[in-house]
Amino acid sequence: MDMKIKLDCIPCFQRQALEAARFVNSDIKLHEKILRQVIAVLENLDWTGTPPEMAHEVHQIVKKECNENDPYKVVKKQYNDLALSLYPDLKDIVDESADPLFTAICLAIAGNIIDFGASSQFDLNETISKVLEKDFAINDFDDFLETLEKSKVLLYLVDNSGEIVFDKILLETILKDYQINKILLGIKGAPIINDALQEDAEYVGIEKMPGVELIKIGIGLKNTGVERNSKEFQDILTKSDIVISKGQGNYEALSKYNNIFFLLMAKCPVIADDLNVKIGDIIFKRS
Amino acid sequence: MDMKIKLDCIPCFQRQALEAARFVNSDIKLHEKILRQVIAVLENLDWTGTPPEMAHEVHQIVKKECNENDPYKVVKKQYNDLALSLYPDLKDIVDESADPLFTAICLAIAGNIIDFGASSQFDLNETISKVLEKDFAINDFDDFLETLEKSKVLLYLVDNSGEIVFDKILLETILKDYQINKILLGIKGAPIINDALQEDAEYVGIEKMPGVELIKIGIGLKNTGVERNSKEFQDILTKSDIVISKGQGNYEALSKYNNIFFLLMAKCPVIADDLNVKIGDIIFKRS
Repeated sequence: MDMKIKLDCIPCFQRQALEAARFVNSDIKLHEKILRQVIAVLENLDWTGTPPEMAHEVHQIVKKECNENDPYKVVKKQYNDLALSLYPDLKDIVDESADPLFTAICLAIAGNIIDFGASSQFDLNETISKVLEKDFAINDFDDFLETLEKSKVLLYLVDNSGEIVFDKILLETILKDYQINKILLGIKGAPIINDALQEDAEYVGIEKMPGVELIKIGIGLKNTGVERNSKEFQDILTKSDIVISKGQGNYEALSKYNNIFFLLMAKCPVIADDLNVKIGDIIFKRS
Repeated sequence: MDMKIKLDCIPCFQRQALEAARFVNSDIKLHEKILRQVIAVLENLDWTGTPPEMAHEVHQIVKKECNENDPYKVVKKQYNDLALSLYPDLKDIVDESADPLFTAICLAIAGNIIDFGASSQFDLNETISKVLEKDFAINDFDDFLETLEKSKVLLYLVDNSGEIVFDKILLETILKDYQINKILLGIKGAPIINDALQEDAEYVGIEKMPGVELIKIGIGLKNTGVERNSKEFQDILTKSDIVISKGQGNYEALSKYNNIFFLLMAKCPVIADDLNVKIGDIIFKRS
């Protein structure tokens, strides 16, 4: 079953809308207008949708009122650049570790902190240090290794800009030692929060990696890509030998499917509750 | 001028209401009813009040719908107990430090993380370690020492339950080396969020300290105590030689007065902006 919104999502959407509006416009009167519109829309909904569905409704208001289809554009580039600047050091951490694949997975989870849906208050460097030392709350790594050894086609659903550089490192680490010959890389087909788009995949060079084929994932709007609840998406799942799903949004949309490896940091009470973990916990879970 | 609410306060009040309701009632339908009522009340206000004024309106809904005048009662006792259990170790930290007064001030700020108004997601032990190592974003300690040396009457406005144990340690440290003969201890006169009440002062034994006299501070409701914007409160300020104010709520209500020493951790964007500091920064500021 699809994961439904919880009451906590209602104020959280308002915070998101406010932050998004501030990224592109400094007019406080407009911010208030947007917040009041968001509240009105939320009030009229019956609060039974999934978080990504409602996020879409909320962010449409910001996009329209600010006349900007991608309010997070600047902050997405900032985090792509920041992550790219860390790339050489992160590669060293992976290469010098006793278990490069496991370390690359830890780093891919650390990168998941760059999520303006959950909070704009985070410290990337601190998160990297913490995740490298922290125990997983849920850890299906052995299961993952077993599946990976038998796999040729990998479906990898990315989450955020900036984070996608960490994903690139994980994919490079996988390609080094395993027989994956095709990577279906799911990026969003249109702007939603700071989720990675095709331009981000190109910017960080992940789409140039051997065997990578981009798949546009829809955001609940027509012609934005393959919706995660569609027959077409299920066909893609079927033809993939192994599936890695990054982040909260993908977990919310995909936890109903079996045999997906979810890689994320629990950053909000709704996700933490669903997984029965604490906020800040790191998760590598096979569904 | 009084500090006004910012747009960020609007979703934050909703989160507070939801958390408060959950402390006393597990009925999700009631939670939704409360959240919808809070949203309706917030929508109809013109968003020009001070944060404590609006918090009062919001929490009245929770109190009424849950039929519980003090929704944070259990969590307040939990944090009093937790802080009391830490008391011996904290005393050792102070006594063994090179500058006990400064260390006690740092700890009093660390205790300020126990603030369910700002967030229910905090780690007290981690905060204590961090604050003891962290530089102050604003530090008027020298100015404080100079004033303290000449003072006999101290007005100390506490903030939260649990935190009040840290305040006790600071007061004990002050009394050891300075000539304070009267401590006017401002606690809230009625329940609001997890703010400390007379019962908390009694529970942690702070009211038994030599020279302590409790003053009930109002929460914007009749007969709850001296309102911070009243003539009576200004008279208390006038007869005090030195004033220490703990936490965000007191800062919001009192930053318009001169010569108050504000001791707090910046925990929300509204306060951080007003003080021109970052979230998580620690502040010892004379107004």
